[in-house]
Amino acid sequence: MNRVLERIRPTPEERARLEGTARDLLIRIEESAKAENLDCQGILAGSAARGTWLSGDCDLDIFLSVPEDGDLGDALFLARRLFPKHEERYAEHAYVQAVADGIEVDLVPCFRLEDARRIRSAVDRTPFHSIYVSRRIAGLEDQVLLLKQFMKGVGVYGSELKTGGFSGYLAELLILRYGSFRGVLEAASNWRPGEVIDLECHSRRDHDSPLAMIDPVDPGRNVAAALTLDRMFKFVAASRCFLEAPALDLFFPHRAEPLSDGDLLRHIHDRGTYMILIEFPAPAVVEDVLFPQLRKAEEAISALLARGGFSVMRSAVAWHRDPAGSPHGLGRILLELDIWELPFIRKHMGPPVWEEEHLNRFLASHKPISGPYIEGGRAVVEIPRRYTRARDLIDMEISGLALGKHISAEVRAGHVIYGGSELLQIGDSEFRALLAEFFLARDRIC
Amino acid sequence: MNRVLERIRPTPEERARLEGTARDLLIRIEESAKAENLDCQGILAGSAARGTWLSGDCDLDIFLSVPEDGDLGDALFLARRLFPKHEERYAEHAYVQAVADGIEVDLVPCFRLEDARRIRSAVDRTPFHSIYVSRRIAGLEDQVLLLKQFMKGVGVYGSELKTGGFSGYLAELLILRYGSFRGVLEAASNWRPGEVIDLECHSRRDHDSPLAMIDPVDPGRNVAAALTLDRMFKFVAASRCFLEAPALDLFFPHRAEPLSDGDLLRHIHDRGTYMILIEFPAPAVVEDVLFPQLRKAEEAISALLARGGFSVMRSAVAWHRDPAGSPHGLGRILLELDIWELPFIRKHMGPPVWEEEHLNRFLASHKPISGPYIEGGRAVVEIPRRYTRARDLIDMEISGLALGKHISAEVRAGHVIYGGSELLQIGDSEFRALLAEFFLARDRIC
Repeated sequence: MNRVLERIRPTPEERARLEGTARDLLIRIEESAKAENLDCQGILAGSAARGTWLSGDCDLDIFLSVPEDGDLGDALFLARRLFPKHEERYAEHAYVQAVADGIEVDLVPCFRLEDARRIRSAVDRTPFHSIYVSRRIAGLEDQVLLLKQFMKGVGVYGSELKTGGFSGYLAELLILRYGSFRGVLEAASNWRPGEVIDLECHSRRDHDSPLAMIDPVDPGRNVAAALTLDRMFKFVAASRCFLEAPALDLFFPHRAEPLSDGDLLRHIHDRGTYMILIEFPAPAVVEDVLFPQLRKAEEAISALLARGGFSVMRSAVAWHRDPAGSPHGLGRILLELDIWELPFIRKHMGPPVWEEEHLNRFLASHKPISGPYIEGGRAVVEIPRRYTRARDLIDMEISGLALGKHISAEVRAGHVIYGGSELLQIGDSEFRALLAEFFLARDRIC
Repeated sequence: MNRVLERIRPTPEERARLEGTARDLLIRIEESAKAENLDCQGILAGSAARGTWLSGDCDLDIFLSVPEDGDLGDALFLARRLFPKHEERYAEHAYVQAVADGIEVDLVPCFRLEDARRIRSAVDRTPFHSIYVSRRIAGLEDQVLLLKQFMKGVGVYGSELKTGGFSGYLAELLILRYGSFRGVLEAASNWRPGEVIDLECHSRRDHDSPLAMIDPVDPGRNVAAALTLDRMFKFVAASRCFLEAPALDLFFPHRAEPLSDGDLLRHIHDRGTYMILIEFPAPAVVEDVLFPQLRKAEEAISALLARGGFSVMRSAVAWHRDPAGSPHGLGRILLELDIWELPFIRKHMGPPVWEEEHLNRFLASHKPISGPYIEGGRAVVEIPRRYTRARDLIDMEISGLALGKHISAEVRAGHVIYGGSELLQIGDSEFRALLAEFFLARDRIC
């Protein structure tokens, strides 16, 4: 564990720099509020506030609170003043992103409340989280760091929509609940879907989520709401691996090497499946908007293929840099099909023979190659299949699918479909590494 | 209708001959019983008893009744005496089959009862049916003939297991219920599954059958029990056709012409499916034993293919004469597949990750090409597929399937599998006519 901690624990210099920058900012905020005669207080939140950030991976989250009956606009005004050079971003409300001493800073307006249950938007809750953890975490920082890095290595860290994994706050609460990194892993290795963890014995409510971590500052909320079943059990499986044989590469996994042309051809040949890649310029949106849309597109395309009688065995989505230089990179949807070619005719089930009106409409609207005949009481015809190849179906119909607002627009404006060995035409290392991982498809399960 | 009746109504000569033979037989039975001092009475039953047989398609059903406390053996003894040259057959009990004046005669021992509800086996009921119909059918014989021929033309006549259609008695009861051929068709064209017809307003019991015709002489029994849903609605659909446009070919359909080599190749090419024929010497059993087994075999093979990831679009079974001279002919199972070739790898779903013991056994027993990975909370591996071609799967596994007792034995002793254009090797006209019908697959639906 020490070998891991050496790599992830912030150095004294890193710590001093971050703490110094934070202190300066809080002082400037106080002075600025006084000068503008605004009731607005700065609060440091996030991992920086409790010393639980992974070395090299830190930013500052500073919340600017106004009174409950105040105006968030005052806080936003102050933030803009503080950083004339900034970017304005938008979650539930607007906030300001800037850089101070080379450190990324988020300045987030919120309401100052007595009780987390009275919050108006999610950001109002964060200061409560910060206070709750800060008061209890002292002495356990290393355990939090180990758990976060382990989750990162296993690919389940990050509650944003791209990952659907564990948030930093959730990792901290798990350490508080089970006392240590190993304690969390031991508990996790026995988790089942529907697990409920309730630090303050607050709530007996049922949750539908695979894991429910009752928020200690707001019992109605599940801290693990974003965690997907598969990410949860990737963590469970990896926990068992670690307990059986604590390997360093669980924390720092080897990245897959980009696949060579020869290896790619060999995989295509040995698997005997049909690979399809759909590629398009990525829209200018953040990951939390892009990835849900990529997944929506992936599902819409798989459903289209299933309706056409084809079958997708596995698929993946990615956002890659564009070697040809699209400003926002490329969206890529990779599909592996086990059924991609079908006969010229298809069986088409009609209504039951006793529904005479439906039946007549059905018979009038088809010129069958075979039939009509009766099967299971229903009229059946065999008619020409519109698309005998999965690739043609995607080609002709993709523009009509609901792929997510931004992706639909990009796909309609232009996309390329590669099938089978045409994938060789794509040589960039991000794609070849994705292929290598796709063909290996190995989660840590022991 | 007269043009139909001309072809199906027994001629005066045919009638005279049948009635003469029947009268002679009944007299000989009476004399013989007297001579042997046995209490045994002959009763003429079936269509010959009420003049409702289709011209050219008649036999004599004579029941030999003994008292309720008597011995069926007495009747059997008498039957053997009467026809020294006979074949002994077996339904629920033994009976005797012989030929008199070129007419096939069944001599069936039964008990003489007061009430059909006290019968000991199905044959005891037949004399009651005969009496019930004979007393009511006078004047409606032509209507019965039209209905029977219509059912024959549509392919739904015959309640034995091969057809699963309408029995002669059921046709007669339908005429009694609806008064005429047209009346039956008008009623039928509005039938729905679960139709109940109760001539004597006997029973309010629920039946699961698609059609329930309460037996007027035994209300606990459904005369239409053998009728399948699909035969019932073939009749319904054809009834509507007739009412819309009464065509002669509904009664006398054109038989499909055997398919030429060229047409067969064209069908195979145009459909783009894969045809498989499994052929084996038929066992020495009657149709009522053979056909249920053929259908069982057809289902077992389709299920095998489905388990292997393949898909049967449609199938048929047949019993044909063997051009090469197998004594009992050939059993043939014809399959048309829309999925018959699959990739080298297949996805294999394992247990949920939280079932640790199952999971460990699963992981230990597979050396995956890809995976293990987690999907839907379960461990998944991608492993080599045992059979990538449907034909190989049948070839290797058919002998281990439960195909029905007699067919399993024959298939194990020897069978041939033909795939795709290999079907051209089979030139006999019965098979080529089956193919023609199979590809047309047209029921009378309007």
